[in-house]
Parts: sequence; structure tokens; C-alpha cells
Amino acid sequence: MGELVFIGLGIDDGYITLKGLEEAKRCDRVFAEFYTSKVFNLDLGREIEILDRKEIEEGNRIIEAASRESVALLVPGDPMAATTHLQMRLEAMKRGIKVRVICGVSIFSAVPSLLGLENYKFGKTVSIPWPRENFSPKSYYYAIGANYPLHTLVLLDTEPPMSANEGIRILRDIEKEEKKGIITEETLVCVVARAGSDDCFIKCGKAEGIKSTDFGPTPHAIVVPGELHFMEEESLNFFS
Amino acid sequence: MGELVFIGLGIDDGYITLKGLEEAKRCDRVFAEFYTSKVFNLDLGREIEILDRKEIEEGNRIIEAASRESVALLVPGDPMAATTHLQMRLEAMKRGIKVRVICGVSIFSAVPSLLGLENYKFGKTVSIPWPRENFSPKSYYYAIGANYPLHTLVLLDTEPPMSANEGIRILRDIEKEEKKGIITEETLVCVVARAGSDDCFIKCGKAEGIKSTDFGPTPHAIVVPGELHFMEEESLNFFS
Repeated sequence: MGELVFIGLGIDDGYITLKGLEEAKRCDRVFAEFYTSKVFNLDLGREIEILDRKEIEEGNRIIEAASRESVALLVPGDPMAATTHLQMRLEAMKRGIKVRVICGVSIFSAVPSLLGLENYKFGKTVSIPWPRENFSPKSYYYAIGANYPLHTLVLLDTEPPMSANEGIRILRDIEKEEKKGIITEETLVCVVARAGSDDCFIKCGKAEGIKSTDFGPTPHAIVVPGELHFMEEESLNFFS
Repeated sequence: MGELVFIGLGIDDGYITLKGLEEAKRCDRVFAEFYTSKVFNLDLGREIEILDRKEIEEGNRIIEAASRESVALLVPGDPMAATTHLQMRLEAMKRGIKVRVICGVSIFSAVPSLLGLENYKFGKTVSIPWPRENFSPKSYYYAIGANYPLHTLVLLDTEPPMSANEGIRILRDIEKEEKKGIITEETLVCVVARAGSDDCFIKCGKAEGIKSTDFGPTPHAIVVPGELHFMEEESLNFFS
């Protein structure tokens, strides 16, 4: 009987853990997927089979391999952040395949950390999808309001990658329609661009002003802070 | 001028990232602190100076070293999860010391991931402190209720380490006084013991039954799930 090891690659090149690396080297076959992120540079000294979105969603190729031999699946961020991987994990478990998860550095904890905001003081995380015809949800706008006085981590669509500028613009447009005072011109907004990379860029400012800042290439993430502890405020001041 | 690099060690031995390891090897001096966790096994092939709680809270020894040379501080989990490190970071920035943060695998994202629960569906994280004379807060009990239908990650006091059994017992005792139906006998509770380690143990069950389970050595963490997606439910079933 085989096994399936999900291994988190973390938030950028170099964020794979020693344990993850060891497992990937030990397994008979190594797969990876990058369809919602950039392609990571990885040098395992061995072949890595890159899967496309369809192969991940169907899951057959992985499950079949894992029912015969030990298989590692390398996933950007934390390997269980996306539902598709949970589905694959459940399918493997149902078939009696031994499954393990080697957690990775996740954007969920990295963004608060980089900003100097307390993880304890975040409410529900939201994400902004690209508006499509007949699909322009506003729930994330209201969730930011409902989280207050807690902070909100706002993740952005990855297909294609949404910039923080576009995200803030969408939030401001909803504000103009809904007028609940959740993202006014004056609302403090923080942007973390390329979290974890050597050219990570962090900037905080009022929504109206910051929305035209050049943050450089994606990925970007947004935080809308709630009530700030004085140390959190001091930290954000360094990025304003 | 020196520099200060905060490096996350992650949730257990082997969870340091390649980038963290590289930075620690590059720096002139390497410090570590383990006063709220177990001592990590680390083989950097060089001296690591272990700091006690007092030295971390005062921060002088680190700040002085970092104003002259490049200094790495190794911290369990993610390096910015605790306020003491944020304080040190701010102090260093005020003095013009170059500061960087190499994020680590955090219990905040690892526990949801190991359980197969969606990170998006968690509300505010709470923690249970040891009850002391004139200090028996109940806010965490009410926060679990307020988070519903979102899940709640419940972290446990580390000084000394609180077991999940003690945590659940404290929650049940508050329930008996407050009677809000937040942690009844029947409430589903999940326990993750030794997250990330090779003998990680995960168990889900009703509060009254699970509170006498032997989870083995600490660290333990608790999750009180809210409304479950069918895939989340299926995942928790594997651990019941």
C-alpha cells in the first residue's frame, strides 16, 4: 500500500520546511501544482511532476500513484488551505491510503505577522473575487464591517491575480453604493505585496490615497485593521 | 550598523524553513528562546545562545548585539505571534536597526489544516489562561458563542502547559455557571495534540466524552467547530 504526503511550500521560494524537504526526498514520486500561484523554484535533485488544474481537481493521477507507492504532493502555502486538497485527502483516506500533512507557512498567519498585527485580533478572513456578470457579491464588504473592532485579512482572487489597487477600488465602489461607512476615503488600509520574498513591500494609508500606490508585481494581500493596540499602531506607522 | 532577523521555527522540530536556516547561518550571532514552548532540536553547526524570559522581555541583550552586528533570533512558531517580539522589533526599528521577519509555520493555520477545517471559516481565536485568584475571565467562553457559525481555535496557557482535558473542563465549568449552551455535553470538540510532530494525535468528539481521553503529552490545542461544510464534517468523522 502506498501513501500520500501533502507538503506545504510556504509563501515564497525558500519557505519549504526541512521536514517537508526530507519527506519529498524520501517519497517514490513527487508531484507539484502551481495553478493558483507563481511557479516555485525547487531543487530537490530529482524529478518533480507538475500537475495542471484539471489533474488536481480530478485527483485520479495522484490517488492512483499513491495507492501503489509513496507520493509527495507539493502545494504552495499551507497544503490544506484549498478545498480541492481536502477532497483529495478524504478520497485517499477512504481508500485506506496512509495520508500525512506537513503544514507550510500560510498567508493567513504571515500577513498579520509582517504587519505587526496580533493574530488574536483578526476576525473572519474574506476574499474578493473578480466581479462577473450576474455575480457581484458584497458579502466580503459587510464581513469587514461585522468584524470590527477586529482586523480583517482580505485575500484577492488569484485567477488572474488581482492587485491590491483593484481590490481597494472594488471595496470603494461597493462603499459608494451601500454607504455603510465601512471603507470610506479615510479608512486605514494595509497592503502586503509579495509576502515573504526579498522584495516584499508593505504600505499602510487611507483607502483613497493608497489605492493609486504602485505596489509592484502580485501577489498582494490587504488588511483592514479594526481597533489598534498602541503597539500595533506604532508598527503600522513604520509602514505609512 | 547591525541587523535583526526574526526567524520562525514553526510548530515542531524540522519546521524551520530553508530561508530561515540560511539566514541563521549567515548572521554573526544566533539567539533562541524557548520559554513558552519545548526546547527545539536544532543543528546549525554553530553556537546558539539561549535567552531566558527576562532577557527577551527586557530585550537589551538582543538590541545591543543587533546594533553592532547581524543577529538572528530563533522563535518557536511564527516569530511575531507574541507581543514581546513585536516590542523588540519596534525598539530595533526606532534605533535604525534593519529588521526582517522570516515567517514560520504557525499553530493558527496548522491546526485548521490538520483537522481539514477551512481557515476562512474561523472567527476570532481565543486562549484559556489558568484560573487564578481574582482572575477568572470568561470572555473566551462567550467569544466561542459569538463566533458561531464560525469555528473557534482555542489555544491553551503555556505556563505551565495546559492540557486539552483541563481546557475542556474549564469550559464545561463555565457552561454550568453561565448556562448559555455554548459548550454543552453534546458540543463537538476537536483536540490536536503535538501538532506537526510524528506522534501528532487528533481526536474529535462530544465535550463530555472527550474530556477524559488521554491525548498524551502537551502541547494541545482545541477547536470548537461551528457550522460544518459536508467535506469538513467528513474530515472530522475520520478523527472521531
